[in-house]
Amino acid sequence: MKSLNGLGFLLFTAVTVANAQNDSTIIKSIFTHVLEKGSAYDNLKTLCTEVGHRLAGSKGNEKAVKWGEVYLRKIGGENVFLQSCMVPHWVRGEKEVLKTVGDKLPKSFSILALGNSVGTEANGITAEVIMFKSMDELKNASEATIKGKIVFMNVPFNQANISTGQSYGEGYPVRANGPSIAAKKGAIAYTMRSLSSIADDFPHTGALRYETGVTQIPACALGNVSADNLSSALANSKNLKLYFKQTCKMYEDVPSYNVMAEIRGSEKPNEVIVVGGHLDSWDVGQGAHDDGTGLVHAAQLIETMKALGIKPKRTIRVVFFNNEENGRAGGDAYTDLAKNSKEETCIAALESDGGGFTPRGFNIGTTMEKFDKMKAWEPLFKNYFANDFSFGGSGGVDIRDLKDLGAATIGFEGDGQRYFDLHHTANDTFDKVNKRELHLGAAAIASLVWLISEYGL
Amino acid sequence: MKSLNGLGFLLFTAVTVANAQNDSTIIKSIFTHVLEKGSAYDNLKTLCTEVGHRLAGSKGNEKAVKWGEVYLRKIGGENVFLQSCMVPHWVRGEKEVLKTVGDKLPKSFSILALGNSVGTEANGITAEVIMFKSMDELKNASEATIKGKIVFMNVPFNQANISTGQSYGEGYPVRANGPSIAAKKGAIAYTMRSLSSIADDFPHTGALRYETGVTQIPACALGNVSADNLSSALANSKNLKLYFKQTCKMYEDVPSYNVMAEIRGSEKPNEVIVVGGHLDSWDVGQGAHDDGTGLVHAAQLIETMKALGIKPKRTIRVVFFNNEENGRAGGDAYTDLAKNSKEETCIAALESDGGGFTPRGFNIGTTMEKFDKMKAWEPLFKNYFANDFSFGGSGGVDIRDLKDLGAATIGFEGDGQRYFDLHHTANDTFDKVNKRELHLGAAAIASLVWLISEYGL
Repeated sequence: MKSLNGLGFLLFTAVTVANAQNDSTIIKSIFTHVLEKGSAYDNLKTLCTEVGHRLAGSKGNEKAVKWGEVYLRKIGGENVFLQSCMVPHWVRGEKEVLKTVGDKLPKSFSILALGNSVGTEANGITAEVIMFKSMDELKNASEATIKGKIVFMNVPFNQANISTGQSYGEGYPVRANGPSIAAKKGAIAYTMRSLSSIADDFPHTGALRYETGVTQIPACALGNVSADNLSSALANSKNLKLYFKQTCKMYEDVPSYNVMAEIRGSEKPNEVIVVGGHLDSWDVGQGAHDDGTGLVHAAQLIETMKALGIKPKRTIRVVFFNNEENGRAGGDAYTDLAKNSKEETCIAALESDGGGFTPRGFNIGTTMEKFDKMKAWEPLFKNYFANDFSFGGSGGVDIRDLKDLGAATIGFEGDGQRYFDLHHTANDTFDKVNKRELHLGAAAIASLVWLISEYGL
Repeated sequence: MKSLNGLGFLLFTAVTVANAQNDSTIIKSIFTHVLEKGSAYDNLKTLCTEVGHRLAGSKGNEKAVKWGEVYLRKIGGENVFLQSCMVPHWVRGEKEVLKTVGDKLPKSFSILALGNSVGTEANGITAEVIMFKSMDELKNASEATIKGKIVFMNVPFNQANISTGQSYGEGYPVRANGPSIAAKKGAIAYTMRSLSSIADDFPHTGALRYETGVTQIPACALGNVSADNLSSALANSKNLKLYFKQTCKMYEDVPSYNVMAEIRGSEKPNEVIVVGGHLDSWDVGQGAHDDGTGLVHAAQLIETMKALGIKPKRTIRVVFFNNEENGRAGGDAYTDLAKNSKEETCIAALESDGGGFTPRGFNIGTTMEKFDKMKAWEPLFKNYFANDFSFGGSGGVDIRDLKDLGAATIGFEGDGQRYFDLHHTANDTFDKVNKRELHLGAAAIASLVWLISEYGL
């Protein structure tokens, strides 16, 4: 028995080594194809320059749905279909105004209404402003000091973190929850320093979340330079008053769609791997890194497999999720579909929603057993500097609930140092995307998804 | 004895663990300081926008020497001094012209003379053009096919490599050696597709090396779009003639300087660690990534140590090398100084000359024993994604000969995907540098150099 065991071990080892060599060869062919011939960059250019921004409920969003459908057909996607969902319809309205009142030299500030915010009164409002430097300061402030005023949250982006995503996460409650916290203390409006890693004057929009039952007050974000200027103006004038006007408004929900395409699995078609990004963007700029790059990252996978003649054993489904930015209607609809399907199981879902930067690896939310299986693939990604496989995380806003169905939820991780310079701004445009960085990410994603399709989890 | 040995081992382990914790704390403080308060980015802005480009021998180079001296004093550098060296003085002259002749619709191409090239005849030259797609094609071509013609090297950048530096290295002989190879076969001029990773029309200059005893023919580089257009024009017209004029010229050598500053070692001042970049740039753009970023990477080290009160045990010397681009006079002068010193030993030299991008790690040329010692520090860099320590390499053009004196030669390695989009072009300007990426690199360099200064090699 001993020698037989030994032989078995040798055979197992030989098969494993042969597989690893084969895997390595296929992954190299994927990278070479994408770097030399991938169309992701060109398709992103079309999305950015011909469709442009595409907030859920907008005309741009309708155009983006069509762009997605045509694109996925063109690259050979199978079973292209639109999954309908009702999305919010928020409209920014006129250019927002925030300026000092009564100054000898009135100052104007560069602002954007926060997404889903209400507008001010039609003629705008004028009120004193009170500044806080942290959420704790706001939470600890008395109603008397805040009542009737405009709250200004002057909270700097934490530059000491290595991960800009972590700093964004730390600042996120200022945007999402701050307006309702201020409203409960009687504030009549809210403005905040943008969640921004760069010292420029592009304001960063993004969704707020009004608490149920709390007065909805108008809220906006200031560019960083404007936040500095407002802070200086306050230092020079204790009872500084601001004039604030924005006309944004939430309308009735409208129908829109997730756009999907597949490559059916050759052996286990009912095991499905979802790969996606989100189709909608904010209503400024071109939504290039957020999240046009995620869409073309995912679609490049279909194009590459078709070009290289790779037939995945399990089904790969590319999903362009709608309404990630201000509602998640697309993510919810897809989760319902996955939950209610009797024929198929979602074994893994990967979302790219951190920009089209040089890949670093993947963040993987699953059981330790499945994580260990994937972690063993890290060496295959070493040559591409994409071998940082970390445990945990939701994978992404659109796919996180697929975890409850047993899917591994995987977030693509790139070098995000520049992401929060651009995120949710008019400056998130196609020229900020580097072709090689984008294509390296697409190749890393295609490689990991191919491994899952080949070996399962 | 056994228990004593055990105790010794435990003590050793305890000391090692305590050291590692202390090292980790210091490295974290370095990163935090540089990310929050570093001045590298602001000083780079001054260099780029107030000095601008600064080819050896130019007025800009003189201004850069002064900028360097003032900067190193301002941040608290000790023993600031200028080391003189004679540098070449090459001048580009008038804007270069390359266009088709006799066409119904003459086409103009975007070109730059290669550095150190001779000019054409004063009124320009007109000749037929012959295209080659590789160095082998050129080497195998007969004199009869080339004689009297302009050679056009249409060699694409290899996009399949993950390292753009590798692709640059593969293409480098086309620029450096091609002109003399063509001249030996009777070519009267030389043009080449730029060594460029991007599909735009910025030509990339860079030094050629004329072979001794071979006729020096004028040589230039085409932007990638221009190279495509010239290739198309050739396909449509077999005996296509080009008109080519450039007035560049090499003058007598002139004096210039390396600029240096130190922090003297507190315990072993005669063991010196050199850290540098190169002060000169090409004579287009602003030399932002090549190599302004290397200068501020190095200088940030002095500022950081002074701010944090870190007193290195060994001497750290920051060197701004002159004339890296077209002669290496500064590197040679410094190597001579190190070789002739009886008081001091250069134990390590680090050069940053690959742009100010997110750090990835270091390439280290030294003995295996010393490499292993440094490799053991990798985990300290893991949190900063700068933990790829690879063996081998010269460290950089300016420092490579210090290896013969026993120094470890270390190249800073960043994420270079965008570097060869910009390298040696008018497009290498300050706005292409991201502050966080630059400062992460500066912190990684400061951390490694601090470890060497603390523990030796």
